[in-house]
Amino acid sequence: MIKNHLIVAGTLLLMGGMAASVAVEPISPIAPVKEINLALAELGKKLYFDPRLSKSGFISCNSCHNLSMGGTDNLKTSIGHNWSRGPINAPTVLNSSLNVAQFWDGRAETLKDQAGGPIANPGEMAFTHELAVSTLSTIPGYVTEFRLVFDSPEITIDKVTDAIAEFEKTLVTPNSRFDQWLLGNNHALTEDELFGYDLFKSSGCTACHNGPAVGGSSFQKMGVVEPYHATSPAEGRSAVTGKDADRFSFKVPTLRNVEMTYPYFHDGEAETLTEAVDLMGRLQLGRKFTADENAKIVAFLKSLTGDQPNFTLPILPPSTDKTPQPKPFD
Amino acid sequence: MIKNHLIVAGTLLLMGGMAASVAVEPISPIAPVKEINLALAELGKKLYFDPRLSKSGFISCNSCHNLSMGGTDNLKTSIGHNWSRGPINAPTVLNSSLNVAQFWDGRAETLKDQAGGPIANPGEMAFTHELAVSTLSTIPGYVTEFRLVFDSPEITIDKVTDAIAEFEKTLVTPNSRFDQWLLGNNHALTEDELFGYDLFKSSGCTACHNGPAVGGSSFQKMGVVEPYHATSPAEGRSAVTGKDADRFSFKVPTLRNVEMTYPYFHDGEAETLTEAVDLMGRLQLGRKFTADENAKIVAFLKSLTGDQPNFTLPILPPSTDKTPQPKPFD
Repeated sequence: MIKNHLIVAGTLLLMGGMAASVAVEPISPIAPVKEINLALAELGKKLYFDPRLSKSGFISCNSCHNLSMGGTDNLKTSIGHNWSRGPINAPTVLNSSLNVAQFWDGRAETLKDQAGGPIANPGEMAFTHELAVSTLSTIPGYVTEFRLVFDSPEITIDKVTDAIAEFEKTLVTPNSRFDQWLLGNNHALTEDELFGYDLFKSSGCTACHNGPAVGGSSFQKMGVVEPYHATSPAEGRSAVTGKDADRFSFKVPTLRNVEMTYPYFHDGEAETLTEAVDLMGRLQLGRKFTADENAKIVAFLKSLTGDQPNFTLPILPPSTDKTPQPKPFD
Repeated sequence: MIKNHLIVAGTLLLMGGMAASVAVEPISPIAPVKEINLALAELGKKLYFDPRLSKSGFISCNSCHNLSMGGTDNLKTSIGHNWSRGPINAPTVLNSSLNVAQFWDGRAETLKDQAGGPIANPGEMAFTHELAVSTLSTIPGYVTEFRLVFDSPEITIDKVTDAIAEFEKTLVTPNSRFDQWLLGNNHALTEDELFGYDLFKSSGCTACHNGPAVGGSSFQKMGVVEPYHATSPAEGRSAVTGKDADRFSFKVPTLRNVEMTYPYFHDGEAETLTEAVDLMGRLQLGRKFTADENAKIVAFLKSLTGDQPNFTLPILPPSTDKTPQPKPFD
């Protein structure tokens, strides 16, 4: 069996099986979720959609990481409490379990650590962990569910973020056409997409955009060959490491579902994939793609859209007379 | 067969069947959805969840009529574009197809008429119908779906609101415990709930809160026996009829799922059902319920929570390079 993509890549190899084919690619298929605490994830799904984790009672995790829209808000920078303008583009929650760390600067090592951040950020959900927990604790539906999940009815921020993180682990997007191709379906991609993928590899994009998430595995300077003039004040990784060398280094974003996660870059300034590919080529690789090359890379990138989250809209347990009122306008 | 509730109501009747029993009650069961254009409703579901119908790209129908939370935002008054503070409490979208008209003042005769209102309201979604339509028209996923549903790819506000209204028709909540009891299950309600229902009827609440939606069928003055001092500037029905006699008349809200649709009244000032029942008794009926009576009416009201919307979170078709960027901060 001769694999088309190896011909396209200029490396004609005769192979017997799929495994060998997968092994030589810098991108690997996304694995479906295998090990999950389903009860914990179901609780986390409710919490993910619950705006009572915000001071206003209006903003939930799903407000800015909208699972109907690629796990993002599709805004340059997010809208937070009191219509605050966020400093940075909201990264997608999809496949975030595959990231080496969370946030653009990687300041949270785990999904669980990340989940607590926005709740207490004055420009996002503007609440406190204590108030979020005391609010949830007045809601019998939650108390019962926490008891079932944790064998104890006490609600803590540790349990809340555990549950949200477990839900987020379910948000992988396997079965993209690109993954189907990786897994041996030679008809899954068009010739243009295969050409685009080859160019993506041969140009060096896969130096950073690799692995199952096609990114998310390292921090890199934004603007290697040419400087990038960001509209965001964020300085990236140096905020975590304290090292001057890490200024303007950001976590390489995943390119999974990139067709849905516009606009691009940490400042959201690239509105289209065409623009993002052009800028990445010039700034990071010193390469100016022709319009045709650019279009074929974009075609390849659109083949990375996988199965989107597929679940029933959660119904949230109602508040009670003891539940504190949200304070949107204080 | 002797029906418990008829004994409780003080009217001992011997009846053979369920139909006769239902007929004597002022509240009737909610019928499940029977006639629907499913393709149109599925398109409407996407539009209902799509924040691209707002100027900011952040606010969708579901933001203020959240189907995870009883079809409301559970806020006194809603948050709109640029964190605008709305003048009035967002009524639930659940069972709104059963209302005589839409909005608190009934200014929209149909769900379809209602659906266009918030899109163009500067304090809500702050967009225009023209911009909403031109945005959707750049999204191939929508163009294809409109073509399939309407046999024509042209997108118009008329079609958009048609689709949203058709989806909203699916948002009925049958099968509450109260409806199970109405339909002949004598074990569906507790004695307290039955006592509460009897008191609800004998006190006169059903003069306005009747029919399948337990309300929604008439406009009534807020503050009949005693005046109500609203925090909302809204004057109600007079804004539509121009008649001074209609000042402070509002559509009687449905009590279906009222456990989930807090806070209450057009100004959202009653935070709990206890408070709402107490005020309604005094202001509308000149009756002061004891704490025990109030608790039993509240118990009855909580039996009106029906099957909540049960569907898969819609995945929205992505924008393209031609789609105008949302303008949250302009």
